[in-house]
Amino acid sequence: MDNRPIGFLDSGVGGLTVVKELIRQLPQEEVVYIGDSARAPYGPRSAEQIRDFTWDLVRFLLTKDVKMIVIACNTATAVVWEDIKAKLDIPVIGVILPGASAAIQTNQGGKIGVIGTPMTIQSDIYREKIQLLSPQTEVMSLSCPRFAPLVESNEISSNLARQVVYESLIPMIDQGVDTLVLGCTHYPLLRPLIQEAVGDGVSLIDSGAECIRDVSVLLNYFQLNRSWQEGEPNHRFYTTASAKIFKEIAENWLKIEINVEHVDL
Amino acid sequence: MDNRPIGFLDSGVGGLTVVKELIRQLPQEEVVYIGDSARAPYGPRSAEQIRDFTWDLVRFLLTKDVKMIVIACNTATAVVWEDIKAKLDIPVIGVILPGASAAIQTNQGGKIGVIGTPMTIQSDIYREKIQLLSPQTEVMSLSCPRFAPLVESNEISSNLARQVVYESLIPMIDQGVDTLVLGCTHYPLLRPLIQEAVGDGVSLIDSGAECIRDVSVLLNYFQLNRSWQEGEPNHRFYTTASAKIFKEIAENWLKIEINVEHVDL
Repeated sequence: MDNRPIGFLDSGVGGLTVVKELIRQLPQEEVVYIGDSARAPYGPRSAEQIRDFTWDLVRFLLTKDVKMIVIACNTATAVVWEDIKAKLDIPVIGVILPGASAAIQTNQGGKIGVIGTPMTIQSDIYREKIQLLSPQTEVMSLSCPRFAPLVESNEISSNLARQVVYESLIPMIDQGVDTLVLGCTHYPLLRPLIQEAVGDGVSLIDSGAECIRDVSVLLNYFQLNRSWQEGEPNHRFYTTASAKIFKEIAENWLKIEINVEHVDL
Repeated sequence: MDNRPIGFLDSGVGGLTVVKELIRQLPQEEVVYIGDSARAPYGPRSAEQIRDFTWDLVRFLLTKDVKMIVIACNTATAVVWEDIKAKLDIPVIGVILPGASAAIQTNQGGKIGVIGTPMTIQSDIYREKIQLLSPQTEVMSLSCPRFAPLVESNEISSNLARQVVYESLIPMIDQGVDTLVLGCTHYPLLRPLIQEAVGDGVSLIDSGAECIRDVSVLLNYFQLNRSWQEGEPNHRFYTTASAKIFKEIAENWLKIEINVEHVDL
């Protein structure tokens, strides 16, 4: 057993969708979260910047004595997961392989859609991972640069949001895709609008939620589970931007009261 | 990617229930299986013997250049998983933690039943693992020494089998258990009879099938997936007893044609 917290990092508030799933599936685990909203979105940035920023977040989490790190951001996973995993001596989990595996398991018709930030789509990492396991599967990728900024500004159910989501997803409609990977952890906050745009016949894969299965398996494998005997978990959230806005989005999404602190990295 | 096979070991034919789930979930992976039917069942043996026999099987699998070992036997997992995992430099997966985690997730009423071999039940390992994660959950354990021998003799749907299963499970009936862990990989072959005995209101947890989720996650985590580009997998099965009987049970269960070789360890 290991009673230290699990560290989560994201470019902003998107990783909260991953934390929500952790709290549901592994309620005894404790979270330390850092969101880099001051520098969000990461998607349109250079690989070099994404690498540097993500390492800033990793170094911050290491000061909190975490037992495991979840890179709860597809863009950061695409660019720097393997590097971080190789350099740390604690397990480091990304969101892309879990999302790709779940998509293959769900897909029936041989064609999977992937939406994500410009960097994630440009890296073509979902196609690569999906086709290694299932070469005959077709992958249709679409960059949605306007989605993460909507979520960061807590604009998730307005008419503007509905319009942006619908317009952005037009190229994905009627293309024979029956499985759509939400390849950015911000997107589950827009899930109702995305489902409405693509129709009920399309199964949405939440890459972040899928990665919690991996967290659970790796906690078992490395024998790192937190014991309930330690009492209720005391989650801690940090943001590089406004603690007030972060708290508003987070409490609305997680349905629990939390403490948020601003930090400068 | 790593195109080497995954090694499976069991006291006999029970691990085939785990292989079946692997073939369903991860059809591109290749299997090398060793079943020690000549010395089955392991359940009533001493810990020392189980340890020695299991290491014999591990050494055999290592000669086949496996990339990962699945201890597809609850008894062997209970006694020697941690030791083998610590000594090998490839991932080693047992069936008990996956079964315990799945049972906690499924359980609603706060009381989980566990059935297994005498050694597994005597080790009390399911209770220990379940209560570490969920201390308030009650665990009711029952040793079923006659089940594995029934399966080893391919007696899985006869009237005798029905009678043995029903009589053995009487202490588990009407005890408020809504989740029952099949804590021996032989037991899924008796699943219809077990379900009939305990009633439809009880969810059965197949510890072996659950462990394939762990295999999938660890293949991803350690980047050991087999590529489809290598062509169809060529599974290989070995038994320390009669190849003919093993083949009969295995083909009936897996619904594929396989090659079985007898080996002396």
